[in-house]
Amino acid sequence: MPGMDMMDMSLMQACMDACAACEQACTVCSTQMMDCGPACMNCADMCNTMMRSMMRMQGMTPATMMAMLDATVAMCQYAMDKCMEHADHSEICRMCAQACKDCMDACAAMRESMMKMAS
Amino acid sequence: MPGMDMMDMSLMQACMDACAACEQACTVCSTQMMDCGPACMNCADMCNTMMRSMMRMQGMTPATMMAMLDATVAMCQYAMDKCMEHADHSEICRMCAQACKDCMDACAAMRESMMKMAS
Amino acid sequence: MPGMDMMDMSLMQACMDACAACEQACTVCSTQMMDCGPACMNCADMCNTMMRSMMRMQGMTPATMMAMLDATVAMCQYAMDKCMEHADHSEICRMCAQACKDCMDACAAMRESMMKMAS
Amino acid sequence: MPGMDMMDMSLMQACMDACAACEQACTVCSTQMMDCGPACMNCADMCNTMMRSMMRMQGMTPATMMAMLDATVAMCQYAMDKCMEHADHSEICRMCAQACKDCMDACAAMRESMMKMAS
Repeated sequence: MPGMDMMDMSLMQACMDACAACEQACTVCSTQMMDCGPACMNCADMCNTMMRSMMRMQGMTPATMMAMLDATVAMCQYAMDKCMEHADHSEICRMCAQACKDCMDACAAMRESMMKMAS
Repeated sequence: MPGMDMMDMSLMQACMDACAACEQACTVCSTQMMDCGPACMNCADMCNTMMRSMMRMQGMTPATMMAMLDATVAMCQYAMDKCMEHADHSEICRMCAQACKDCMDACAAMRESMMKMAS
Repeated sequence: MPGMDMMDMSLMQACMDACAACEQACTVCSTQMMDCGPACMNCADMCNTMMRSMMRMQGMTPATMMAMLDATVAMCQYAMDKCMEHADHSEICRMCAQACKDCMDACAAMRESMMKMAS
Repeated sequence: MPGMDMMDMSLMQACMDACAACEQACTVCSTQMMDCGPACMNCADMCNTMMRSMMRMQGMTPATMMAMLDATVAMCQYAMDKCMEHADHSEICRMCAQACKDCMDACAAMRESMMKMAS
């Protein structure tokens, strides 16, 4: 990816792992058929797309990658908020909210690192 | 989706159709194993994720939807640019670039319509 | 795909279209959060995977393609059965059951055509 | 899943992990744009679909699950064979072939365990 030679590979690996974990947690959670379900389905798909793009390390620019990171952060935030409403009575929602938070944080850290490189 | 009651359903349907067509064109194009391949793979995944989210019409907010539209526009633009480099000698790239352009335009129109509603 | 030169392209195009339509119907249906939801989620994913493989027309053998067709037929059959339980009171389930049936039939026709070619 | 109460959960967990690892290895491998690419793209999609279905643990029957395991075994076998052709000069293909083999073995073990339960 042009202009990205200095990308922090440990942040990126952490980000891919967090996306994979979040896709899995959201897939499990959405199967509960609770009202967080649609948010978790959207989040699972977005996390898979984000993870695959980072795996490829090609076919992107810093601009496309940042736009996808923004979309993943936004989706994780919303799925987390929806799952937190059920965190008291669903262990699965509690774990899903945590996976969403971890993924949101990892994507935000990745994005911040890219912004620093670009400046 | 709260706050989205006034969404333009014909724009959304056109957007879903354009995402579906773009996923298919990019899937075909990436199988050519040319240097637009990784961009087209990323674009196919992003378009599928965008299409599914619109199909669900739930589990989103205007903010998450706009972030995903931005990511889809950015990915389509880049895949289109890469395919245009081969448009002279690959009919598949030419069709793929067109599908990317149509999807980019449909997502941008959707986004603009949402911005107007929000203001 | 070696040994597949004689494949019936009109059957394959119909099969890809039916997979695309079934993925979309199942995605909508699973968002209803009814008890057909998990079957429809599985069916949407399987249909997308089947469609993409046929789009690629490479990276397969007749054996892998038939195994995937069998899996798609089985998933469509089950999602259809689950949705038929709600067909009386959900228009979405009725449309989803029809899309599953169409996809099942298209995949079965494709499989039968491949068996004839192989013999 | 009816009739599956006795499913071996440690085999299933190993199978989901192997599918996740295989999707990732195949996604990386297909980005090399070598002639194993299309097989690896098909394999990545199939493994993701298989993994998500097992994660859901609902919306399946033993018959649909076995059909999907068969399709995953067939796809992994073929992607492995294609990658083995490049194993001497591509470390990525060597790792991908191993991930395909592990996933194939884990799915075959899962299938065998289900057959035993059913008899």
